[in-house]
Amino acid sequence: MFRSHTCGELNANTINTEVTLAGWVQKTRDKGFMIWVDLRDRYGITQLIFDENRTDKIVFEKAKSLGREFVIQVKGTVIERESKNKNIPTGDIEILVSELTILNQAMLPPFTIEDETDGGEDIRMKYRYLDIRRNPVKNSLLFRHNVAMEVRKYLSDQGFCEVETPYLIKSTPEGARDFVVPSRMNEGQFYALPQSPQTFKQLLMVGGMDKYFQIVKCFRDEDLRADRQPEFTQIDCEMAFVEQEDILNTFEGLTRHLLKEVKGIEVDKFPRITYDYAMKTYGNDKPDIRFEMKFGELNEFAQHRDFSVFNSAELVVGIAAPGCATYTRKEIDALIDWVKRPQIGASGMVYVKCETDGTFKSSVDKFYNQEDLANWAKATNAKAGDMIFILSGNAHKTRTQLSALRMELATRLGLRKPDEFAPLWVVDFPLLEFDEESGRYHAMHHPFTSPKPEDIDLINTNPGAVRANAYDMVLNGNEIGGGSIRIHDKELQARMFELLGFTKEEAENQFGFLMNAFQYGAPPHGGLAFGLDRLVAILGGQETIRDFIAFPKNNSGRDVMIDAPSTIDTKQLDELHIMLK
Amino acid sequence: MFRSHTCGELNANTINTEVTLAGWVQKTRDKGFMIWVDLRDRYGITQLIFDENRTDKIVFEKAKSLGREFVIQVKGTVIERESKNKNIPTGDIEILVSELTILNQAMLPPFTIEDETDGGEDIRMKYRYLDIRRNPVKNSLLFRHNVAMEVRKYLSDQGFCEVETPYLIKSTPEGARDFVVPSRMNEGQFYALPQSPQTFKQLLMVGGMDKYFQIVKCFRDEDLRADRQPEFTQIDCEMAFVEQEDILNTFEGLTRHLLKEVKGIEVDKFPRITYDYAMKTYGNDKPDIRFEMKFGELNEFAQHRDFSVFNSAELVVGIAAPGCATYTRKEIDALIDWVKRPQIGASGMVYVKCETDGTFKSSVDKFYNQEDLANWAKATNAKAGDMIFILSGNAHKTRTQLSALRMELATRLGLRKPDEFAPLWVVDFPLLEFDEESGRYHAMHHPFTSPKPEDIDLINTNPGAVRANAYDMVLNGNEIGGGSIRIHDKELQARMFELLGFTKEEAENQFGFLMNAFQYGAPPHGGLAFGLDRLVAILGGQETIRDFIAFPKNNSGRDVMIDAPSTIDTKQLDELHIMLK
Repeated sequence: MFRSHTCGELNANTINTEVTLAGWVQKTRDKGFMIWVDLRDRYGITQLIFDENRTDKIVFEKAKSLGREFVIQVKGTVIERESKNKNIPTGDIEILVSELTILNQAMLPPFTIEDETDGGEDIRMKYRYLDIRRNPVKNSLLFRHNVAMEVRKYLSDQGFCEVETPYLIKSTPEGARDFVVPSRMNEGQFYALPQSPQTFKQLLMVGGMDKYFQIVKCFRDEDLRADRQPEFTQIDCEMAFVEQEDILNTFEGLTRHLLKEVKGIEVDKFPRITYDYAMKTYGNDKPDIRFEMKFGELNEFAQHRDFSVFNSAELVVGIAAPGCATYTRKEIDALIDWVKRPQIGASGMVYVKCETDGTFKSSVDKFYNQEDLANWAKATNAKAGDMIFILSGNAHKTRTQLSALRMELATRLGLRKPDEFAPLWVVDFPLLEFDEESGRYHAMHHPFTSPKPEDIDLINTNPGAVRANAYDMVLNGNEIGGGSIRIHDKELQARMFELLGFTKEEAENQFGFLMNAFQYGAPPHGGLAFGLDRLVAILGGQETIRDFIAFPKNNSGRDVMIDAPSTIDTKQLDELHIMLK
Repeated sequence: MFRSHTCGELNANTINTEVTLAGWVQKTRDKGFMIWVDLRDRYGITQLIFDENRTDKIVFEKAKSLGREFVIQVKGTVIERESKNKNIPTGDIEILVSELTILNQAMLPPFTIEDETDGGEDIRMKYRYLDIRRNPVKNSLLFRHNVAMEVRKYLSDQGFCEVETPYLIKSTPEGARDFVVPSRMNEGQFYALPQSPQTFKQLLMVGGMDKYFQIVKCFRDEDLRADRQPEFTQIDCEMAFVEQEDILNTFEGLTRHLLKEVKGIEVDKFPRITYDYAMKTYGNDKPDIRFEMKFGELNEFAQHRDFSVFNSAELVVGIAAPGCATYTRKEIDALIDWVKRPQIGASGMVYVKCETDGTFKSSVDKFYNQEDLANWAKATNAKAGDMIFILSGNAHKTRTQLSALRMELATRLGLRKPDEFAPLWVVDFPLLEFDEESGRYHAMHHPFTSPKPEDIDLINTNPGAVRANAYDMVLNGNEIGGGSIRIHDKELQARMFELLGFTKEEAENQFGFLMNAFQYGAPPHGGLAFGLDRLVAILGGQETIRDFIAFPKNNSGRDVMIDAPSTIDTKQLDELHIMLK
């Protein structure tokens, strides 16, 4: 045995025990006659002591040679520490070392292996194996493991069966760009890596496996925005013989279980709001409801006065920023500049101070009287001491702008608390969205999503108005999961492909196997998928997913540690029947 | 709710309950005034009854239209069955149906959805979603899920952390052929899909994550022999600060846990035998020890007589086939023909009947006396009533031939019982094997395997004799897991690459990141990987892995259900900077 204990478990109860420990040298303090070493492993830090008077001379000399991150094994006795450290579990004791083996030396690491490191993102990624030694990264990986285990336990206990679906599948032009894999045995042909196991999980439903899940890697060859990865992990789920309500209840149950087990938090039943309500009230479909600041629509109280900006606007809409009536002119101007930045794109912003004496002071006082402003305050639910910010213009754009402002203000006001969790369901998504560029409808969720039965007739007359049996789970302003009830009827599925601009041949060629399967007794079914990377990051109270992924790629899709992708031999290319262009 | 109960749970205790069930029509029996329907879902079969006298007329007529595999929903009352079926859990009851909804119609399936189907392998694969409705396939998938869950539970309880390693990694010419993925964002470069997460798990050890596991897909672009898949699943494990003994104990514990939890079988401590012993005693390194028939080497008792075939042989070796002394001349000749087939390649076979009266009768009686033959019987542990079969020639080839015969005889004699489990460890594998074709040494396990410390000096003088700290777990004649203690020293790793014919540049280019990592404090470490597909199949008492994989590929690497791989657009090729050759 290499070690009798880990570096996290010895304490006052184990004094006088003979132990063997192994780990990395975190730091050394050499006082000449006495050397202390902090020995670190995955479980904690234990202090070692080498004492000129009590330690064998050769061992003592060897201890002098120890450098940071050396890998060592020691034998010794647990003794009480003179100056105790109450901040760590092992702080009451130290090990008086009798034997020391240097298992491996170490070069000086390129950044400090501390919770707060001096290493930047790039160098940490290049030496990710050193970064993982740091508590924040190590703990994130352990946390991710716990979350995944709890997901599996919960779903398995509920009768779900994890089924592995294939990674080498078929490329489909629909949706995002596929990663493809040239086939050596099938000349000129390619596999694709799955963007999701969507069709396979539907085929499992046709196959009678009525509760399926899988924690599975998925792949999208897209230009990487910040905090996106070309390979990402989904908790993919599907159920047969269910209605939307069954699915929402099941996965609300999963999320409540996770919050309880990994965060110790009990949450109430999740609010359910419609897509339309979310857009009107929060300006987006993944609202952060840890705080209020709901939109107040002001057209009724702001138009038909003398302020032409508002009169000509499709929408006048405001939010009340709590306690911000004290903002100085400078602070307000800075906020106005913020919404006018090209990323936001507002052309200006009106504000109303709700004074503590019940009066209002606004930037548009010459157009509006106190009664008007009182109506604005009422519509935005503003209290004395709040500041109302108002934007106007095209309805969709204005909502998007005000939503951005809402989030920015919440961040500045400290309302987005990482240890507070406010999950909700957004339901009744539109089935289709019109894409101006291609001049045709796209599936908002995906082409397998079922329209609401009561909206089916609209498919021919007003496709844009058709609502889907589609839902998202939203947590703290992030979509963490989304899904839908699927189409299980061959005719309706064919009609959907037609609506989405597929020719009969294209639909047959790409999804023929699915439509074929639907002819052999497909049950009603539906499901959803959670993004595990994001879910874990949010549960961990972090904004970025990168430290919850052991070996992430950078924004160019490169693994800078192993230096991939890389060139391959011409022989390999030849075998795959391809050549570089 | 679509259903109040599943088709597997109603019984005599639930008589008179009003229930809603949903599922597939397994079969119908129409007696004119009475219609019975077997309704099937994942959980079982429940009999429905439609009675002209008790069922609504419209419902009754609709029931007449039901065909096999129609998807229906029924409401009705649980009643006692007149003629009970003791073979199924629901055999005491039936449902008197009051409402019937046809959820989906079904075309006649291309093969019968029964335990014993009339569908051949090809058609079952094309309609795999129908095949999965059959109990043998469905139960195999459920069984696989249980095994995977138990693996995760056990390892997690032991402090192992499941870490997801990347799928888009770097191609290395060593080992089997990689599947590669052209990079769009990095022109002319390729990712590779992992053949195993080997280097990543070693980097996790350098990173201090001292107990790692992952159930993970791996990929090998090899010509597919029977029962191999281009994508397969490994239980991949690694530990730091351990010796070989720790690893064997840990994963022996895992396997015992699995046998107990999923098979209800308690097994003794696993035997451990060396590679050399395995080769000498069983003729291969993955012996099936559910039965005896150990090799007896006969050179001492068979050479220096007048039989020139044996005299000139490097090895004379035999096995005792229990109870086979009664074989007829015809049966013996058939066996001799069997070993002379080109796949086996023996030039002939000698046999000795161990008569029940203690005498021997052999095919070489003119060269050997009873005393000689008695020695042969002793060496092969033959009893009265057994038949000894003896092969001779080049030692390695002869062992391989006799091993094949041993397995064939055991199969014929019914000694390879699928419900009996005999696991063992084979240890002390050679580090290297000489490849005649390339004229150089190859790593027997992989280039990261550590030689035994006591054999390190042999590396320079007699590389072929160096033993490795490498081990395989063998179950019922199959290698189900294998691993090694790894090299954690940069110099030794560099020496290994040199021995394996890598130039310094090649080693640096392909594995520089690993050797670099070793400079920053690599702990001693080792691990192993289990093949999950094979493990599950063996535990399930099956010879073939295919039914334990939801969507397997055929021997040309094709998914015949979705028809992949397939051609892709020129636009896609252009974006990836490649063209067809």
